[in-house]
Amino acid sequence: MELDNHYMSRALELAALAMGRTSPNPLVGCVIVKDGAIVGEGYHQKAGTPHAEVHALQAAGEHARGATAYVTLEPCSHFGKTPPCADALIKAGIQRVVVAMVDPNPLVGGQGITRLRAAGIQVDVGLKEKEARTLNKGFLKAMQTGLPFVLYKSALTLDGKIATESGDSKWVTNEASRAYVHRLRDHFDVIMVGSETVRQDNPALNCRIDEGRDPVRLIVDGTLQIPLQAAVLASSCTAPCLIATTASAPLDKLKALRALENVEVWQYDSPRYVPLKDLLGDLVKRGWNSVLLEGGGGLAGSLLREQLIDEVEFIYAPKLIGGKGPSPLTGLELPLMAQAIPLEFLEIDGGTGDLRVRAKVNYAD
Amino acid sequence: MELDNHYMSRALELAALAMGRTSPNPLVGCVIVKDGAIVGEGYHQKAGTPHAEVHALQAAGEHARGATAYVTLEPCSHFGKTPPCADALIKAGIQRVVVAMVDPNPLVGGQGITRLRAAGIQVDVGLKEKEARTLNKGFLKAMQTGLPFVLYKSALTLDGKIATESGDSKWVTNEASRAYVHRLRDHFDVIMVGSETVRQDNPALNCRIDEGRDPVRLIVDGTLQIPLQAAVLASSCTAPCLIATTASAPLDKLKALRALENVEVWQYDSPRYVPLKDLLGDLVKRGWNSVLLEGGGGLAGSLLREQLIDEVEFIYAPKLIGGKGPSPLTGLELPLMAQAIPLEFLEIDGGTGDLRVRAKVNYAD
Repeated sequence: MELDNHYMSRALELAALAMGRTSPNPLVGCVIVKDGAIVGEGYHQKAGTPHAEVHALQAAGEHARGATAYVTLEPCSHFGKTPPCADALIKAGIQRVVVAMVDPNPLVGGQGITRLRAAGIQVDVGLKEKEARTLNKGFLKAMQTGLPFVLYKSALTLDGKIATESGDSKWVTNEASRAYVHRLRDHFDVIMVGSETVRQDNPALNCRIDEGRDPVRLIVDGTLQIPLQAAVLASSCTAPCLIATTASAPLDKLKALRALENVEVWQYDSPRYVPLKDLLGDLVKRGWNSVLLEGGGGLAGSLLREQLIDEVEFIYAPKLIGGKGPSPLTGLELPLMAQAIPLEFLEIDGGTGDLRVRAKVNYAD
Repeated sequence: MELDNHYMSRALELAALAMGRTSPNPLVGCVIVKDGAIVGEGYHQKAGTPHAEVHALQAAGEHARGATAYVTLEPCSHFGKTPPCADALIKAGIQRVVVAMVDPNPLVGGQGITRLRAAGIQVDVGLKEKEARTLNKGFLKAMQTGLPFVLYKSALTLDGKIATESGDSKWVTNEASRAYVHRLRDHFDVIMVGSETVRQDNPALNCRIDEGRDPVRLIVDGTLQIPLQAAVLASSCTAPCLIATTASAPLDKLKALRALENVEVWQYDSPRYVPLKDLLGDLVKRGWNSVLLEGGGGLAGSLLREQLIDEVEFIYAPKLIGGKGPSPLTGLELPLMAQAIPLEFLEIDGGTGDLRVRAKVNYAD
């Protein structure tokens, strides 16, 4: 059991290597063990490329016969862009398969496991399931609801301000925290801000760390207030820039934006306010399962009101600024403290000098 | 050395038992050890009563001869309300004294140690000095600066609000945190609020835990806005209620308040605004070394601007309220983020369901 734990941890570690690179597919890692030694391992690297099991089986070669395979997600049983992994495991002569979690994909949904068992393979399900679920929050949420996993990230002073009264916010948190945010960008499919944030801070919203991957950048901008010179529109970014707008968008601005390279404008029928749930659903339809909301206390408030934010991550700098500057949720307004939206702490980490708090939003239905 | 650590920890533990009860004196604990066993222990319980060493020596009796004494603070060498403890230790035949820290009191200042050494006693100084200093923050600050140790405590939502936009703040934090605040009140000499807090929340500011001790309650009220029916003025509290005011106080209100039992009004010459540094200095003159500032983002801001707050303790509830409600430091207004007052985290504790953060204020001179 302790060894099982060890190998599944390794499989999870491998899976995580592709964070931000596999959507719409899940992150999956696989380790093949024979006679107490790892004979092959692999992970799913990108949609359309081989699954984790295939990489691991290839590495193991003949050693796979009689071996145990540790997989973070149930092996698939259907022909997608690649043939079913369950079949590959059977053909390779694997004796036992340890699976962290059943695939929530209705095309798989336990059939991979059934297939393995029918072939006489011992299948154990549920080892480190919680960790496996945490790893694939985006994939799971999208599969189960058609909506992406949304994390709202904010940087604030210990007294709860994201900027001074005059709007200055450079910088709230320290370098380590800012690097951490770029790692987050690297891991999320989409980064989302309101047009107010674009106008005030003019962020590039790209990923500025070594081997980082630029996320899709999404600007929610009901009336197309974004300036044409905004940094986020620069085509140097490797991922597209989406602008979500409404019927209230001025036609000439719409045309000018659509003429830009690497820029897409999604126009919704409604007046002034982008229908946020529809927008998020459309992201999943495009294959993007996770959204990092980076700014705009107004946009964050609207999303919270519609119960569209799954988790928040607040990074508190050890400093006091005072005054009446903005807080991270100006767009939400609840008259009584008893109506506050409850959270559940997931992580509390003061290790980098700033205090990082991750919490799950528990909506009261 | 490990044993020394153990006994000094016990002495510190004993000293802490009298927290909030010894001012203007320091907290002191003493353990006497002979042949590997504790033969006597004690702590200073209240100003005017015997010192820790006296209690411990009494308990040890004849066993004190040839024993080692562990004391959290240098034994005194002067005649105060009690005779010098250094002499008592010598007379009892103590062979070795382990002292956590030198007494900052200029009346002692190393002379206790000199006296012990002159009598042939081995004296080791500095064991667990940091812990000893932490324990006596109030006493040390008062001795060294003539000002009390000031802790600003605030309860806020994770998004940095102490109340909703409409002013509702019942309750932000959970029961465990509210009980913790009463324990703080038990440990501090004075609890301080602005008159705005009294008018808005009408708090009793007493200590409502078993065996709790009511702190002196101090209301900063430059123009005497406090209503005569305020809960804080009720004489049921065992400690006095102080009201600090200015030349702008209306005479009839002044008279009415002074006529109340258990109420003192301190009137300062200045107009409208109470001179905060003078006020804090006067608290020390009265023998009160520690102040718990509980409310009023305005008052907290003024105290911070004058560099009078030593530490902050923010207790974050896992909830989101949003909107434009008040933050804990409305009275401070710094235009640029680069001007923020730096803090140093001392404690981060999520153990009770809320997130408690204690930090030291590092003023930039």
